[in-house]
Amino acid sequence: MRRVRYALVMSLDGFIAGPKGEADWIVGDPSVNVAEFFKAFYAQFDIAVMGRRTYELVGGGIESMRTYVFSRTLSPANCKGVTVLSDGLPELAKLRAEEGRDIWLFGGGSLFGSLAAAGLVDSVELGVMPVLLGGGTPVISDIAERVKLKLVHTEHSAVGVVSLKYELERPGGALP
Amino acid sequence: MRRVRYALVMSLDGFIAGPKGEADWIVGDPSVNVAEFFKAFYAQFDIAVMGRRTYELVGGGIESMRTYVFSRTLSPANCKGVTVLSDGLPELAKLRAEEGRDIWLFGGGSLFGSLAAAGLVDSVELGVMPVLLGGGTPVISDIAERVKLKLVHTEHSAVGVVSLKYELERPGGALP
Repeated sequence: MRRVRYALVMSLDGFIAGPKGEADWIVGDPSVNVAEFFKAFYAQFDIAVMGRRTYELVGGGIESMRTYVFSRTLSPANCKGVTVLSDGLPELAKLRAEEGRDIWLFGGGSLFGSLAAAGLVDSVELGVMPVLLGGGTPVISDIAERVKLKLVHTEHSAVGVVSLKYELERPGGALP
Repeated sequence: MRRVRYALVMSLDGFIAGPKGEADWIVGDPSVNVAEFFKAFYAQFDIAVMGRRTYELVGGGIESMRTYVFSRTLSPANCKGVTVLSDGLPELAKLRAEEGRDIWLFGGGSLFGSLAAAGLVDSVELGVMPVLLGGGTPVISDIAERVKLKLVHTEHSAVGVVSLKYELERPGGALP
């Protein structure tokens, strides 16, 4: 079974993009080879899932991954290189039950909220940057219930980025 | 010189209280003696500083600390056990320059934002709870500029609370 992993970087106060969509607060670790890092990261996934807003920001699919966009308003004909799902939850449940590499839930605090509520997210994996933004795109939004987590891993880099990995307390997988 | 320390717990998504002021998401570590913990924590401070909203929530001063409330609207005569400062920044700068125990900046993402901008905060010390709330009182608010931090310490408890300590990049101390 694949795991659905919400993996991304955020500010210490929980924003994944600044008030104007800025990403210039994201710092790299000079001791890490960025190309190698991304190669190893990308190799863990063969499917990416994102919401409409993230898709419009990115402007396409994620390289080397089948990309699904959850949207009730986008026209599939206008979205090259990605598959638009107007009713994504059952489809994601099916993909998750398959054998294969993991599924990257990319951006989208609102999509994450609805997938977590549906028990379709397995982990939250954050790189916490040493900065407070005070506003922007929240790491999670539009949720009816708190999401309880279980800490499974922590580490930090020389430049002060803290990696936190959590599993969701009840990633049941059953649809609500 | 005293250090001004913003020390508190927050959810992973950066809230220090839930949407209705809830604090029931804060978990303790069963291996820690709570009374001992608070005794050791309180012993580090002899001054507490808070904003009006926090004061109204708490309803008084912090035990065993001189408590200052930053507010332009509260009437000092109505606030027993605390000192109301209508122009708190220069006063805090003076207190900080004294010899003594540290100063606890208690609650108040908005007050923290203004003190950080004035270079009057030395550290941010967070207990990050393993939960996403999706809304509530933000750990920082009303800031004009990002607050850059330097990670100085991390640890985590058996129940998944991550302690992160940061110093502010330029806690200059000079008023703007």
